[in-house]
Amino acid sequence: MSKVETKLNNMGIYVPDAPAPAANYVPFVISGNLVFISGQVPFVDGELQITGKIGDNATIDDGHAQARICAINLIAQLKVACDGDLDRVKRVVKLGAFVCSADDFTGQPGVVNGASDLMVEAFGEAGRHARFAVGTNALPLGCLVEIDGVFEIA
Amino acid sequence: MSKVETKLNNMGIYVPDAPAPAANYVPFVISGNLVFISGQVPFVDGELQITGKIGDNATIDDGHAQARICAINLIAQLKVACDGDLDRVKRVVKLGAFVCSADDFTGQPGVVNGASDLMVEAFGEAGRHARFAVGTNALPLGCLVEIDGVFEIA
Amino acid sequence: MSKVETKLNNMGIYVPDAPAPAANYVPFVISGNLVFISGQVPFVDGELQITGKIGDNATIDDGHAQARICAINLIAQLKVACDGDLDRVKRVVKLGAFVCSADDFTGQPGVVNGASDLMVEAFGEAGRHARFAVGTNALPLGCLVEIDGVFEIA
Repeated sequence: MSKVETKLNNMGIYVPDAPAPAANYVPFVISGNLVFISGQVPFVDGELQITGKIGDNATIDDGHAQARICAINLIAQLKVACDGDLDRVKRVVKLGAFVCSADDFTGQPGVVNGASDLMVEAFGEAGRHARFAVGTNALPLGCLVEIDGVFEIA
Repeated sequence: MSKVETKLNNMGIYVPDAPAPAANYVPFVISGNLVFISGQVPFVDGELQITGKIGDNATIDDGHAQARICAINLIAQLKVACDGDLDRVKRVVKLGAFVCSADDFTGQPGVVNGASDLMVEAFGEAGRHARFAVGTNALPLGCLVEIDGVFEIA
Repeated sequence: MSKVETKLNNMGIYVPDAPAPAANYVPFVISGNLVFISGQVPFVDGELQITGKIGDNATIDDGHAQARICAINLIAQLKVACDGDLDRVKRVVKLGAFVCSADDFTGQPGVVNGASDLMVEAFGEAGRHARFAVGTNALPLGCLVEIDGVFEIA
């Protein structure tokens, strides 16, 4: 098992099987040494734990937890892209994060830190990435957060 | 004519002239073997066929049809980037799709399938891509869908 | 001083110190010859000059001015990525622009031109880029515009 996944397991985080997309797109595309991963929603065993909007029915803590799950699902896809060996990850390059927000909610960065922190926990300095964090009025299936990513692998 | 464009024509799809942007940006930039294409709105002969929001005045089928037109416009730009030869396209790498949504509309993936399916119809396996599909409360000129893309060419 | 920065200074534009992000992400990541820069908000000396939504309390001119500041902040980060020498910039590849919009505001392209024009003023033909310009109902801290970018450097 890769050192990265061993570390995650020691933290109590288990990389799930990567869910397959339900349409004519794929979870990731490798071009050169970059992996482009599709927007991940916070599925746990194929289910959303919470739906709605942050600042309305959901709190910033809810969003933070859901962003963390998006990050775990990105890592699950990345593991497949690396043929199972997460130690091949050279850098988390960029995350693009969409936070389903009430019209007056402006705390998107704090929500997305749930994903950013997990990347650093998993990959150390190589986990520090560029990102955007923005609000939106509507996300697929009513999920709170959707995050896509670009990664550099060896 | 490229095999890809011949196939599209046989499907009754004609690649339009690529519209020029109206400001200090360009339809695409090539960096290495990647083509970054600007967000395309569903113009047909410079006009939008429908405006509004899905889940409000527009249906998911409207959105699906508009997303398909965005994909055709991406291919129109890509054709220029390839000096007219779409057979130089090695891979549709990533689509970024924004769907103008009523606050309670959560079917963005089904809308964006209109674009994803067309890419696979045009390019086969090479057309299968990473993507994000998110909602937004407002798009340029009131269009229903805007999609940008990253492509790998030879 | 680089020719690019001298030209900006002659236009009365001074590249500020690049602000550090407040969380586990970084202002930019370099992968190959591409620089991925995090979403920049229109801070001036760490403060937003205006908050709200365009089409509600803010005008398109407000948004245009704020987009221009986002572009200056992108250039500030790019300067650090280039070890201070903006003449190493080969191309502005792509901007991703989010405009905080009232539900019926559809003039996002005019707003984002504030950033696009500045890139061309700074870098000439190399400043012409691909972009998307979309609306959103909510941005961090209530800012009017957030823009991220991809740049090619030597």
